[in-house]
This record gives sequence, structure tokens and C-alpha cells, in this order.
Amino acid sequence: MIVALAGGVGGARLAVGLAAVLRPAQLSVVVNTGDDFEHLGLHVSPDLDTVMYTLAGVNNPETGWGRRDESWQFMTALKELGGSDWFNLGDRDLAVHVLRTEALRAGSTLSEVTAMLARRLGVRHALLPMSDAPVRTRVITAKGELAFQDYFVRERCRPRVQGFRFAGSRAARPAPALQALMQSGRISGLVLCPSNPFVSVAPILAVPGIRAWLRRRDFPVVAVSPIVGGAALKGPAAKMMRELKLDASAAGIARHYGGLVDGWVIDHADAKLQTTIEKMGRGVLVTDTIMRSPAYSARLAATLVAYVRRLAAERR
Amino acid sequence: MIVALAGGVGGARLAVGLAAVLRPAQLSVVVNTGDDFEHLGLHVSPDLDTVMYTLAGVNNPETGWGRRDESWQFMTALKELGGSDWFNLGDRDLAVHVLRTEALRAGSTLSEVTAMLARRLGVRHALLPMSDAPVRTRVITAKGELAFQDYFVRERCRPRVQGFRFAGSRAARPAPALQALMQSGRISGLVLCPSNPFVSVAPILAVPGIRAWLRRRDFPVVAVSPIVGGAALKGPAAKMMRELKLDASAAGIARHYGGLVDGWVIDHADAKLQTTIEKMGRGVLVTDTIMRSPAYSARLAATLVAYVRRLAAERR
Repeated sequence: MIVALAGGVGGARLAVGLAAVLRPAQLSVVVNTGDDFEHLGLHVSPDLDTVMYTLAGVNNPETGWGRRDESWQFMTALKELGGSDWFNLGDRDLAVHVLRTEALRAGSTLSEVTAMLARRLGVRHALLPMSDAPVRTRVITAKGELAFQDYFVRERCRPRVQGFRFAGSRAARPAPALQALMQSGRISGLVLCPSNPFVSVAPILAVPGIRAWLRRRDFPVVAVSPIVGGAALKGPAAKMMRELKLDASAAGIARHYGGLVDGWVIDHADAKLQTTIEKMGRGVLVTDTIMRSPAYSARLAATLVAYVRRLAAERR
Repeated sequence: MIVALAGGVGGARLAVGLAAVLRPAQLSVVVNTGDDFEHLGLHVSPDLDTVMYTLAGVNNPETGWGRRDESWQFMTALKELGGSDWFNLGDRDLAVHVLRTEALRAGSTLSEVTAMLARRLGVRHALLPMSDAPVRTRVITAKGELAFQDYFVRERCRPRVQGFRFAGSRAARPAPALQALMQSGRISGLVLCPSNPFVSVAPILAVPGIRAWLRRRDFPVVAVSPIVGGAALKGPAAKMMRELKLDASAAGIARHYGGLVDGWVIDHADAKLQTTIEKMGRGVLVTDTIMRSPAYSARLAATLVAYVRRLAAERR
């Protein structure tokens, strides 16, 4: 069993690749819910939906969020009525938010709702929220502390970042299926997807028990750098690193994670950083990491799985 | 000030006519909320929406509910996800349900939400729910007691009707603006729209205080028969009357309301019933009552307003 920790687009693309090379019994994708929020009375789980839609093949590849072949009549009517229109909800996408919200209000857990929705969309691999409890990423900026979506969508990542806070994380527990995996002794490796380290991976690691579990692990952790050639492929990761006075490069990312990661997968564009990262005591594998299509994702996933197995063999 | 009591389609059509011949300060439309229900976690107010959309000119004239130029991507996605699909919610229509539900959850009253939505849709005349408290029409049938929408939409009015119950009515109070009107002494007449007497008008009359107010009134009540030529123009009114062993005719309707109505407006098709109704001690005016278009509605409304004024003058 391989566990992948994923945020939005980068996580979704790698999840598709991993799902192509691993059977359902061999893969569990654990998704960040720190960017979940209540909007218009609806519970929206942006990262879970991006990964779910992508695994189901119904995602919108242009935007990186929402569904393909989407229409916007709801938003048009909402604007006419003076409703809040800074966060776009497509007509088809709405069905997920409405069903999720209804089920949560009726007492279902986020894990249960996610499993139900994913199953109905034809997703066969396990898709798990990091926790059933609300953990909400707060971005501390020069303009004050902002809820994640206010920072990300409303403010378009413009405010200068000073730090992060994961409200609710102290009281959270890993989702039951994740807890079961953590206690199973059946994990052969963990993959950190090329997701934002601060707002996609950090919220997962902030759930009590997860970091300790990784510290005492008997399996390798491999990671794909979300920074390639000094830039994030998607989103504000590089901008955040610069604002936090970190080195916005694959090496800076490796330094940030430290001993949490055993092996780094970096892009050919960053081949010159291999020695720097190896000097930190980490393994490095240089390959194509840009997932231009599901075929690229599957190739990268196969490389990762082979790397996990090699590192696991070296441990024995 | 004229007050109109309205249900769905018939009420909406007459409301449009009244709004065409009366200024905003001269008309308040009080709408049945007995068919409101919670669906998919959303508060749906079918009659309020039908009247609001019709007054705003954005109604769907074919269906009698929902908005014109509607699309159904939400329902398509909902069905794919295995969601409950017996009640259709259009993509544009959804904006109203989502905003209303959000505002109600945030503590607004149904009156406040209705006023806000109507204003934003450009409705200038007062549109009032009968009550801000939940009153839920239950239909007692040969198949047992059914929630109104289960009877009306899910069962398509097939079960044989034995009676009605308005759950919550005992604890309800008229909406604040309606209470203010009731105490104002400024009412010059009340119009019973051609709405279903059992499931549109009766829930309004079941709100404590309204029937007593009408009993001690100093203004005339005029009504338009919802039954023309022995048939309801829309909906199950005639079927219900037959099942309740009532005379499914304009005369049967007049008998049903008794002294609550001073003057009846019946269609030329029912001219032969004039004497029967007059023998009950009620006034009768025979005219065209079928509202084929807003122009017909306005003509009927003008006739009604003149009739109200004549009856009011006769009282003095």
C-alpha cells in the first residue's frame, strides 16, 4: 500500500498517474482539507473535489478546478440577485456541494461523504480527507490574517505572506481510514505529491499524530518538487517562499522538508541542484516531472513507485 | 390598500394584473407558504417563487414554476451522483434557494429574505409570506398522510384526498408586515386569487388571527373562482373537490367559502351558476376570468378593483 499526500492540481495529476499504475488495494490518496470552507451555506472542499474530479476524469483541465463542460447559469442568477460572486460554483459542480452539505448536516462524516461521491463518480482508489474534523488554513499576511480562500481567490494571493496557522488542527484527528492505515503496518511508502508545502502539505502534517507517525516510519517517503526551475507550476508556492525568505527552488523545498523526505524527484531542469540536495543527506532522482497529460502522470508515477521500492529495499 | 391572498400559478397571474393596475403603495400580495419544504438541505418556497418570478417577468410560462430560459446541468449532475431527483431545481432557480437558505440560517426571517430577493428581481409591490413561522401542508390521503410536495410532485396528486392538516399553524403568526396591515385600518378590500382553496388559500386562513380578522372586517372580500366549467385551470382543485364529495364547480367553491367572500367573479362559461351563488347571499360578477396573458390579467384585475370599490361603496 502506497499513501499519497495531495493538495489540489499537482496532487490530482500525480494521483491519476498513481491510480494508473497501482491497483485500488495498493493506493490511498490523502487530501488536504485546510482550504475547505463554507460558502453560501455550502461546504466546499476544493482540494478533495479537484482530486476526485481528476481521478474520475471529469475535471476541467484548463482551470485546474471544477468540472469540464461546465455551465454558469447559477452564478449568473446569483449575481443578478446580488449574491456573493467572488467564488465561482459551476452548475454541475454545485451538485457535489449540495449533496455533501446535506449529508454532513444529516450527520455523515466528511470521509463517508467523500467515499460516496467518489464511488458514484467511478473513482475506484481510496480518496480520504486528511481529517473529518474542520482544519482551516489561515494565511498571516501584511494585510492581516486571512481565511485561505480570501487570500487565494478573493485577494488572488497578492498580500505578502508572513506565516500560516491551521485553525482547529489541535483538536483534529486523522480520518478513520487514515488512522487504520497508520496502524496497519502495511504501508510500503509514502509519496508527497508536488503540492504547495505551506497550504497543501503542511495542513495535513499539522493533524496530530501524522508527523509523529512519519518520524517513526519504517517505509520511505519520496517527494516530487512542486518548484521547477525556480517557479511553481501552479499557484503561489514560489511567491510564498520568496516572501518567507526561503530559497524558491527544488533545493529550498528539500531544505524545508528536511528529514521528512528520504528521496527527492526533481525535474531535468533542476539537475544542477542534485548535489546540493544530496549533500543534505537526501536521495535524488532526476526525471521529467511536468505532468502535461495523464500519460506523463503515469510515467512519473511508475518512476516514483520504482523509487519507493528501491529505497525500501535499501532500508532492509 | 388592497391585499391579495395568493397560491401559485393562478395567484401569480392575478398578482401581475393587480400590480399593473395598482401602485406599490396600493397592493400587498400575501402568499401561501404551506407548500414550502426543505429539499437537499435547501429551503424551497414554491408559491412565493412562482409569484415573485411572475411579478418580475422572469417566470417560465410553460411550466407554471421556475424561471424562463432555465438550464438543468445541476439536475443532470445530481442524478449522476445518485441524488434525489424527483423535484426539479433549475440552475438559475437554485440561486434563489441557496441565497434564501443561507439568509435563513444566518437568522433572517422569511419576510426579510423574500423582500430582499423580490427587490433584487425588480418587484416593486409588497410580496409577503403568510407567516415567517413554518406551516406545512399535509395531505391526508387513502395512502396515508403525505407532505404536500410528496403528494403534489412525487405522487402527482394521484392518491385520493380525504383531508388536510397544516402542521405548525397553531404556533404561527401572520408575517409582521401582514400584522401591520391587519391593524392599519387602511385595507380597502381583499382579493382571493383563483388559487386552490384547500392547499393555497386554506393554509393562509389557518394562520391564527387571519380568519378572525376577516370575520370582523370593514372591507369587502372578492374572489375569483379557481374552477371554470367544472375544471381547475391548473392543479388538482377539481379532483380534490370530487374526492371530498363537494360540488366541483364555481358554485361549490362559493359554498365552500360561505360568508368569507362578499362577491364572486366567475367566468362567462359559468354564467348559469350566477343565480345559485346569488341565492347564497353572495354578489356575482360574470366576466372573462381566464388569464391567457398579462393583458388578460390586467383586465381582470381592473374589473376586480372596480368591483371591490363598488362593494365598499355599497357598505357605506
